[in-house]
Amino acid sequence: MKRILIIGAGRSTSHLIQYLGNLAKEKNWHITIADINIEMARSKVFNDYMQAFFLDISDIKNTDEAIQDTDIVVSMLPAHMHISVAKLCLKHRKNLVTASYMSDEMIALSKEAQNKNLIFLNEIGVDPGLDHLSAIKALNEIRNDGGEILDYESFTGGLVAPGYDNNPWKYKLTWNPRNVVLAAQGGVVQFIQEGQYKFIPYNKVFRRTEIIDIEGYGKFEGYANRDSLKYRETYGLENVRTMYRGTLRRPGFCRAWNCFVELGATDDSYILDCENMTYRDYINNFLAYHPTDSVEIKLRQYLKIDQDDVDLWEKLVWLGLFENKEIGLRKATPAQILQKLLEEKWCLSPNDKDMLVMWHKIIYQKNNKKYKRELSMVCLGENETYTAMSKTVGLPLGLATKHILDGTYSQRGAVLPISADIYEPILSELSEYGIVFNEEEQIIST
Amino acid sequence: MKRILIIGAGRSTSHLIQYLGNLAKEKNWHITIADINIEMARSKVFNDYMQAFFLDISDIKNTDEAIQDTDIVVSMLPAHMHISVAKLCLKHRKNLVTASYMSDEMIALSKEAQNKNLIFLNEIGVDPGLDHLSAIKALNEIRNDGGEILDYESFTGGLVAPGYDNNPWKYKLTWNPRNVVLAAQGGVVQFIQEGQYKFIPYNKVFRRTEIIDIEGYGKFEGYANRDSLKYRETYGLENVRTMYRGTLRRPGFCRAWNCFVELGATDDSYILDCENMTYRDYINNFLAYHPTDSVEIKLRQYLKIDQDDVDLWEKLVWLGLFENKEIGLRKATPAQILQKLLEEKWCLSPNDKDMLVMWHKIIYQKNNKKYKRELSMVCLGENETYTAMSKTVGLPLGLATKHILDGTYSQRGAVLPISADIYEPILSELSEYGIVFNEEEQIIST
Repeated sequence: MKRILIIGAGRSTSHLIQYLGNLAKEKNWHITIADINIEMARSKVFNDYMQAFFLDISDIKNTDEAIQDTDIVVSMLPAHMHISVAKLCLKHRKNLVTASYMSDEMIALSKEAQNKNLIFLNEIGVDPGLDHLSAIKALNEIRNDGGEILDYESFTGGLVAPGYDNNPWKYKLTWNPRNVVLAAQGGVVQFIQEGQYKFIPYNKVFRRTEIIDIEGYGKFEGYANRDSLKYRETYGLENVRTMYRGTLRRPGFCRAWNCFVELGATDDSYILDCENMTYRDYINNFLAYHPTDSVEIKLRQYLKIDQDDVDLWEKLVWLGLFENKEIGLRKATPAQILQKLLEEKWCLSPNDKDMLVMWHKIIYQKNNKKYKRELSMVCLGENETYTAMSKTVGLPLGLATKHILDGTYSQRGAVLPISADIYEPILSELSEYGIVFNEEEQIIST
Repeated sequence: MKRILIIGAGRSTSHLIQYLGNLAKEKNWHITIADINIEMARSKVFNDYMQAFFLDISDIKNTDEAIQDTDIVVSMLPAHMHISVAKLCLKHRKNLVTASYMSDEMIALSKEAQNKNLIFLNEIGVDPGLDHLSAIKALNEIRNDGGEILDYESFTGGLVAPGYDNNPWKYKLTWNPRNVVLAAQGGVVQFIQEGQYKFIPYNKVFRRTEIIDIEGYGKFEGYANRDSLKYRETYGLENVRTMYRGTLRRPGFCRAWNCFVELGATDDSYILDCENMTYRDYINNFLAYHPTDSVEIKLRQYLKIDQDDVDLWEKLVWLGLFENKEIGLRKATPAQILQKLLEEKWCLSPNDKDMLVMWHKIIYQKNNKKYKRELSMVCLGENETYTAMSKTVGLPLGLATKHILDGTYSQRGAVLPISADIYEPILSELSEYGIVFNEEEQIIST
């Protein structure tokens, strides 16, 4: 019998646990679902091969024992908490799987993991995860067929399914709200386009968007991720003319979001004393004093919002920015206040369905012809629990966990899912669950 | 005989050294001018009571000996270098004077300085320095006369004298160019206006300016300093409705400067590989790729610069931003590249005269009437060496040094020049050197 320890039973784990739980009998697995919220862990147990377990990750002794008792750990903790788990995995010689970005600390443990014959597989959720699997498969196919990659663009977005995008922003929160508020902060956005390096400061990121059309789902807009060049070597694209990775929203979102950027409402670096402060006062903090002019007219003038720019204005009004409603926090950064408001307004209703969209565009040349290949994948959520986000994060994680337990992978140390022995079987199995990339190719010049 | 050690003989020390040197015989002083550039130090010596001294501040033994041999140290070093000097002053029980902002490290030494009967006087240049002296004197006069301060605004600018402001920006560098490029970075700008806290993000600081008119010198525009609230308690203005401190430029400067902010050209956080890069390429780094559109049209469209906005456009063209001239650096941050360009273009010519402008506005009420008092001071440079900057920085420093040697001040520890025994005599003596505040007062409501 093999033992699996899943640490963290939050809302993105539904499909992961369902997938592994359904295989447990056949595979002779025992699955422990550990969380500090034991009730949540219990609610995920659905057969006799599974058990819930109370785990406070800050209790090292408790965590140590749990890891000692397992064969593999799937860590669904916030990214910065993986390392203490990884160190215990080294201590007890256990494999590890995460959906988080590979950190420098994780890389530092790679050598010891190799020496102990362990695999620490990271970035095997959706973004990062499925983006790597699907893009590298396509890039390798083209290269193996004699093509030379010229341009690569890739966008992913966690959105709301058509019909449920019933607010002016056509957006609801399906993932960590803090990351949504702080998106594109922390340094200049950089990428390469037609051989030219390009740099976008924070105040312009949400104005330099690209429109993408996905058949059957309409138009999306994409804004650039912070460092598109990060995976250049990983993907073997050192000499590519264009490398651009970004995030998808529905058109109009970014222009409206930029109002918050220009106001300074997404700033997380200082604390406002917001006791008794209303959302209207909050917005007025960022506007010049005037004895009689309204917050509305000052905002319009400051951000140059035309009187007839109804689409943008409706978004701001709908959020309740101008309402004299108390925020209900004592001290918070501007970003935390905005997050609180968005969590109320952009909340998924119980019957809402979410949507995960991924899109890659590859331009390549072969035999003096230029081709454009586009890959798109749209995954719709089933309900509040079985979301598209949980499915596209959890299934790659679950499939990789199965393969590691089956001993399929030969790599050791801290690794990314970029080799064919990892991406081929996972992509093939994902298609059985409806996660399929639609491919289109055309000659664009000869 | 008393001994004075001046550390640093750069261009802002001309008046300081002239003032102290002229008094040396009468006062029985001996002045040592120490610098790592011994030639520069020698050039400042003009009588037998002065000597030049080679001093490398990183050579602790050398510095230790120099400080041991003196009675008072005037440190003209960059702000972060004062602390090692201050610690040696403690060791050898010497007084210290600087024109820099009081740092937390300096405050931490205050107790020991007090115990050793020493005074470490900071912020006694122009800004900080003369701004404190003149503002606090006026505020105290009003309060002593029964007035209640409602609003306080203060602006200072190091500029070019009328007639010498012969470029489209009406600006040349008279002070640390790096500080000019990085102005308003490093955190949100905050102040209080009519009882309301106001916050301005970096992308808007140079668009939220105020126009100030100074008789005989025309109009200026002021942008907000980073933390106007810093001196609220120091000035006794805890309950004031408005507290706003800023920097002066000539009108039109800030709107044009904001182009650099919006582009991201003032970013000092990442390195560009700029070997063989021209200034035109540099600007194009920040603009979207297009196969045929010019850098000029892309910039206009991106920053919404109208075709007939001649004043702004002329400023950008005059700087040579669109020229295919090589930058001549190998690796540099965007801010460093911009600084290099500005140092070439905004350079004072040998015959240019600079100008230092300071302006305070105080609104107060007394006996149910409201008054507005404005104080303005304009100091013009004499030539390239005896600049207004050097005069307004150096004379307060020199006068304070004299008073400390004379034993006039009773305070001990790390202190600011905010008490009447410090500001009264210095302001009175400064008027003999033409540094005079013009005061105007009017009733604005009854």
